[in-house]
Amino acid sequence: MEKFSDKAINRLTLYHCILADFQDREIPYISCGQFAKLLKIDDSEVRKDISLLSNLGKNNNEYPVRELKTTIEKTLGFAKNKKAFIVGAGNLGLALAKYDDFKSYGLNILALFDNDRKKIGTTVNNKVILDISKLPNLAKKSEVDIAILTVPKKYAQVMADFLVASGIKYIWNFAPVVLCVPDNVQVWNENIMGNLLQFTYDI
Amino acid sequence: MEKFSDKAINRLTLYHCILADFQDREIPYISCGQFAKLLKIDDSEVRKDISLLSNLGKNNNEYPVRELKTTIEKTLGFAKNKKAFIVGAGNLGLALAKYDDFKSYGLNILALFDNDRKKIGTTVNNKVILDISKLPNLAKKSEVDIAILTVPKKYAQVMADFLVASGIKYIWNFAPVVLCVPDNVQVWNENIMGNLLQFTYDI
Repeated sequence: MEKFSDKAINRLTLYHCILADFQDREIPYISCGQFAKLLKIDDSEVRKDISLLSNLGKNNNEYPVRELKTTIEKTLGFAKNKKAFIVGAGNLGLALAKYDDFKSYGLNILALFDNDRKKIGTTVNNKVILDISKLPNLAKKSEVDIAILTVPKKYAQVMADFLVASGIKYIWNFAPVVLCVPDNVQVWNENIMGNLLQFTYDI
Repeated sequence: MEKFSDKAINRLTLYHCILADFQDREIPYISCGQFAKLLKIDDSEVRKDISLLSNLGKNNNEYPVRELKTTIEKTLGFAKNKKAFIVGAGNLGLALAKYDDFKSYGLNILALFDNDRKKIGTTVNNKVILDISKLPNLAKKSEVDIAILTVPKKYAQVMADFLVASGIKYIWNFAPVVLCVPDNVQVWNENIMGNLLQFTYDI
């Protein structure tokens, strides 16, 4: 399977959202035009994306909802189970911990970490909040190499250093800071400001 | 000024993060190589992005931090003040309300809205949480046309319909649902799952 561009992956997950909704409403078929209308993009772009997936049965230019959904899941590797920790149990960390959709996309949040005594030991969405000092051992024991970093900006670099020293290989960074990490560690900056500016560029 | 691509806007905001950090640490100059190393991208890409900005003074292949930061702010329209409401005062809504960086990027959050009696009337980061029924009048009175939608997935479409009826023209949607809105309303899907999958595609 050829690697999809970031924009195509983004579109495929949006198609997946729409398919999940159609499935809930027990609508068996969907057309390129329906995707295009909801996403306000061109029919031809949808058709091209779907043609890059494996050979799907088509019925009068409509695709079977269930099969197309499964194909997207396989293509994007939702089935591969990935384990992760949330580092920082503030509002954002808690919001992400409550996000049940992560599991259906193959991301399994094992626990949250914080240094606030009042939070440690409590649970959110069946996930326990642990003392940050326990992270290095648990990362090794549970073979976790993804950390979702939701600490305040001023602690982000110190915490990234700590995660790197704990063997974390992938950091999904929600703090508005560019982290400095070794070459063998990957950072994905969830650049909320960048997204905002793309959205409001013409306003 | 020619329109930048979404990817370029994304990079420019990351450069801006780095410049803010350098300015805090009172480092007066920065090179393309320093940006490139922190973001793990190619020097030439940084050089191209910066060359698209206005003619900046260069000193031995280094750029003055303060001037470059101001130029990016002007280019991306940080200076234009944009007013917005947060709709949904759950963990995600509260996390965004606490995000002081919005203001420096020109986004002014005037208030939050919810239907939970226990939350209504309380404040978060000096912003009051109001009864959702008050939104239509306040949107008109304060000329707010951006809503940041952070309600649970199952209420997202109903709430989007309500926002559209209230005259909201831009919806920044954090719910993992593709919203159906009229053509004169723009939706930006903050597709967290898509971002996750781009990041973890190769894991």
